Amino acid sequence: MKKNFEYLGRLREAMASRGIDACVISGTDPHQSELPPRHWRGREWLTGFESENGTNGTAVVTADDALCWTDSRYFIQAEDQLRDTGFRMMKEDGPDAVDLVDWLTEHTSAGQKVGIDGMTFSVAYAQRLEQELNDNGVRLDTDFPMFDTIWPERPSRPLNKLFIHDEKIVGQTVDSKIEAVLAETRAELANAILISALDDLAWTTNLRAAGDINYSPMYVGFLFLSDDARVLFVDDDKLTDDVRAHLAKYNIETRPYDSVKEFVETLPKETRLLIDPAKTARGVYDHIGCATVFGGDGVAKLKSIKNDTMIANLATAMEKDGVALTRFFMMVEKEYPTGRLTEVELGRRLRELRLSDPSCVDESFAPILGWNAHGAIVHYEATEESDVAIEGDGLLLVDSGGQYTFGTTDITRTVALGVPTAEQRHDFTLVMKGHIALSNAIFPAGTTGHQLDVLARQFLWKEGKAYYHGTGHGVGYFINCHEGPQNIRLNINPTPLEPGMITSNEPGLYLEGRYGIRCENLIVTEHYETTDFGEFLHFHPMTLFPFDRSLFELEIMTPEEIKWVDDYHRLVRERLTPLLTADEAAWLAAKTEPLA
Amino acid sequence: MKKNFEYLGRLREAMASRGIDACVISGTDPHQSELPPRHWRGREWLTGFESENGTNGTAVVTADDALCWTDSRYFIQAEDQLRDTGFRMMKEDGPDAVDLVDWLTEHTSAGQKVGIDGMTFSVAYAQRLEQELNDNGVRLDTDFPMFDTIWPERPSRPLNKLFIHDEKIVGQTVDSKIEAVLAETRAELANAILISALDDLAWTTNLRAAGDINYSPMYVGFLFLSDDARVLFVDDDKLTDDVRAHLAKYNIETRPYDSVKEFVETLPKETRLLIDPAKTARGVYDHIGCATVFGGDGVAKLKSIKNDTMIANLATAMEKDGVALTRFFMMVEKEYPTGRLTEVELGRRLRELRLSDPSCVDESFAPILGWNAHGAIVHYEATEESDVAIEGDGLLLVDSGGQYTFGTTDITRTVALGVPTAEQRHDFTLVMKGHIALSNAIFPAGTTGHQLDVLARQFLWKEGKAYYHGTGHGVGYFINCHEGPQNIRLNINPTPLEPGMITSNEPGLYLEGRYGIRCENLIVTEHYETTDFGEFLHFHPMTLFPFDRSLFELEIMTPEEIKWVDDYHRLVRERLTPLLTADEAAWLAAKTEPLA
Repeated sequence: MKKNFEYLGRLREAMASRGIDACVISGTDPHQSELPPRHWRGREWLTGFESENGTNGTAVVTADDALCWTDSRYFIQAEDQLRDTGFRMMKEDGPDAVDLVDWLTEHTSAGQKVGIDGMTFSVAYAQRLEQELNDNGVRLDTDFPMFDTIWPERPSRPLNKLFIHDEKIVGQTVDSKIEAVLAETRAELANAILISALDDLAWTTNLRAAGDINYSPMYVGFLFLSDDARVLFVDDDKLTDDVRAHLAKYNIETRPYDSVKEFVETLPKETRLLIDPAKTARGVYDHIGCATVFGGDGVAKLKSIKNDTMIANLATAMEKDGVALTRFFMMVEKEYPTGRLTEVELGRRLRELRLSDPSCVDESFAPILGWNAHGAIVHYEATEESDVAIEGDGLLLVDSGGQYTFGTTDITRTVALGVPTAEQRHDFTLVMKGHIALSNAIFPAGTTGHQLDVLARQFLWKEGKAYYHGTGHGVGYFINCHEGPQNIRLNINPTPLEPGMITSNEPGLYLEGRYGIRCENLIVTEHYETTDFGEFLHFHPMTLFPFDRSLFELEIMTPEEIKWVDDYHRLVRERLTPLLTADEAAWLAAKTEPLA
Repeated sequence: MKKNFEYLGRLREAMASRGIDACVISGTDPHQSELPPRHWRGREWLTGFESENGTNGTAVVTADDALCWTDSRYFIQAEDQLRDTGFRMMKEDGPDAVDLVDWLTEHTSAGQKVGIDGMTFSVAYAQRLEQELNDNGVRLDTDFPMFDTIWPERPSRPLNKLFIHDEKIVGQTVDSKIEAVLAETRAELANAILISALDDLAWTTNLRAAGDINYSPMYVGFLFLSDDARVLFVDDDKLTDDVRAHLAKYNIETRPYDSVKEFVETLPKETRLLIDPAKTARGVYDHIGCATVFGGDGVAKLKSIKNDTMIANLATAMEKDGVALTRFFMMVEKEYPTGRLTEVELGRRLRELRLSDPSCVDESFAPILGWNAHGAIVHYEATEESDVAIEGDGLLLVDSGGQYTFGTTDITRTVALGVPTAEQRHDFTLVMKGHIALSNAIFPAGTTGHQLDVLARQFLWKEGKAYYHGTGHGVGYFINCHEGPQNIRLNINPTPLEPGMITSNEPGLYLEGRYGIRCENLIVTEHYETTDFGEFLHFHPMTLFPFDRSLFELEIMTPEEIKWVDDYHRLVRERLTPLLTADEAAWLAAKTEPLA
């Protein structure tokens, strides 16, 4: 038996003493972060199941049962880690899926009480839970912060120091951002806003921290804005003199992180406070003493549109990233014949190469390095257990990115080592034809991502092949590698693609047990031309690294497609060569020769 | 002053005697028909503004003002026809648009009463109107059938005889259709359904009538279905002995058309009646005495999927249509040099040729015959006033269709007369590239029209050109030429394209004052293949008539595109030649020669 049995016992005692019959434990924090700090990884501590992404595990504990829900990516790992913990695994998706809320309503009865720590549930989720429980005569207690008492060794909140994201890098003052946010707030008929999402917070304040959140230099805090007050709720230990001066310059008062509840409780009655129900904690909401307005993604929309300074800086980040990748893939080619490279080793080397540039503070996500069959696992993460040697013939899929202070990168390349098969070249070319069709698209202003998505899929579909993930996600600027509100997916998304938005372009193909292919550039939406028919936009590729020439099947490419690859490779060569040694430049020259 | 002044006076008297301060007059009927019978064209009679499409005009009358709203297609005509009638025109769209409900809420005040004839407003529209008026303290009287009293010369309801749409042609019995409708009804948690939409009614009962509705062989009635009762509400004069026997065979009782209100008033209390709020009249809804369930487009969905018999029969209708068009365009080519052809004359000749086949009972819509600048008016209808001679060089756009008893056709061809310009050939080819890309698409089951639409637009967009209408609409089977629920548009539509659905494929380009291009085939969705990645579907073209070879710019076409045209032309030749005279066959052979 693992220690989790004992933890479970402590939790049940806490439940009993508060009269709680069942409790639900989320894997996230008061900011609905995907990768929450350790302080809020109580679900992990309690159950022993460690999902990288905190939101991929939710536990339910009753007097005589203990369960942990997760999704199909984690079934094998969760089964394993939950063994002998007292918890059993429940499936969130797939044919045997059980809905957590349904399960809970079936296993509680009228008069009972369910407890949650309201700080770790969004207003929207808690509302659905409460509604369905109430319909059954069950009450929801949203103020059961179980880990305060049962987890003595609980890590503190992250106390990493904030630093200023220089205005010269950002191209916009905090004042102008706050004004834009307040204009959005007024447009929603509110007169104040509480920002809970950490990427929105970092963007608005031009502040960052390293270490609060894995892979993303955001920091933990809340921000209140109105015409009369600007208040940042943040742990005092995180503030330096520089940051205090920066905040003072923009008239932003600081208050203790924990005082946010008390603050919203005592807001003037005429306040109409805008909150995003998907991002605001129910524990905060419960304290709001004024009118609230549920609002959408106004700040996310502002954040998604990068100004000219950001685009120019991101171009520099892309050059640095291209140099790191040049060195990485040169190394792979050189050392591959030794048979001593493994996926884990490659991950280590890639990280080293990226972070050797002082402006790169971290990777932008856990890199995916998949050799052959592992490349077919869309979210594969190489571990000591899964690791394989890179040997024989095959395809290596490398999806990775860096957090440069002047831009976030995200690139996937699939390269052949040894001799690729005709089928691999054919499939790679189908994926690239889709990548090129999307990259080359010209479209009227107002067009959304879901209207363009088919361009990237059409050639695979023609041969009865398909991939099931989105084609593109928004990308932050030295913040989250995944951000909204725009994307390029088959799913409906009403947000138009606007000039300045950075989106990925990453079609793929995955043959289970055999190989995976994904080809990803970041593309920026730009003005193209205005005609009698209105304004037209197009994409410009930001990422700078060649696609593997040996994988193109020229026979199924049009002259325009071949020209696109050659033009793109010329751009890569021109931009990277000045930054390379003679050897590296020669290697790149060979990799960017015209296809035909 | 026109007579409308007098009519307006009568209406204001009727309003005053009922204490009504303002009334709204719709242009449709109790079935929300687009082209209502004359009996329900009271708005037209009152205002003098004759819009082909009844729903394109809505009037508002107050004690001292009278207005008629219409959309941009009718601005010029409406201004003209409303002169000296006492009514002024209001714009529904464009920069000077005024929302009718907004106007009404601004021009009424608390305590006042607005009247409508509830039978000519949908539940959904009336609900919005009532909500906004009530918010202002204004009451809505939904039982003000003004035309019963003020329009003595009002035409009767259409009394055309019903006829049976033969089961052999339809491939499905009324029983099996009713069972399917009741299954959909149960799926919506209802146990009875009232069908108000005339196309749904015609489909379910395998009955038609000629003349009730222009261009569509539907008939006026309501149908109630439950496990215990099947009741058709229809004017007795419409029934023949054959039709009575047909109804008796399927246990369908008939009752007078007007008794539907009384019937729904006295339904058993345990009835849960499914109605479509967009298709059901508020005047009927007001009488429903049991629980109602607002449902979607279940019957429309069933109707949209054509069985194998229908598809095979439609193929025959397409042959007949192709023969008529062969004769038509041969005639155009022959007589064009005389300079005596005009748009109106061409329309007359085309109708004659189509209806010379006894199975063609009518055209399926008012044909659009536009020469040069008139082709650029998307919904142009040639009249004595607008008519022009077909002379000089240019493009002729012909959009037309027939109601054959075994299928509805809808085809657009754009042909050059004289010498086309390089620009015209270029634009035509861009439109055709889009047409071909959509026609050639292969896509996973579950794909919707809005996910494919961009395929038809992409080549125009690349050159800063665009069209603003949908790319494709559903097409009925000897019913409405426009039907739902599927379509192919940029607008979001969650309905997937399913095998058996008939949809148009009609991209276009319109250069104001110069020329218009539209290329339209009907395409049927079919199973293509099932692979490891699931089921894939594709389209098969049903329409049989060549595209103008002289308008293709081969230099911008891929070999696959040229092959598509040649293959399609070969199919047209093979299918039509056996039905043609030697002269006609020779003409068609020349028109379907390979492009290169």
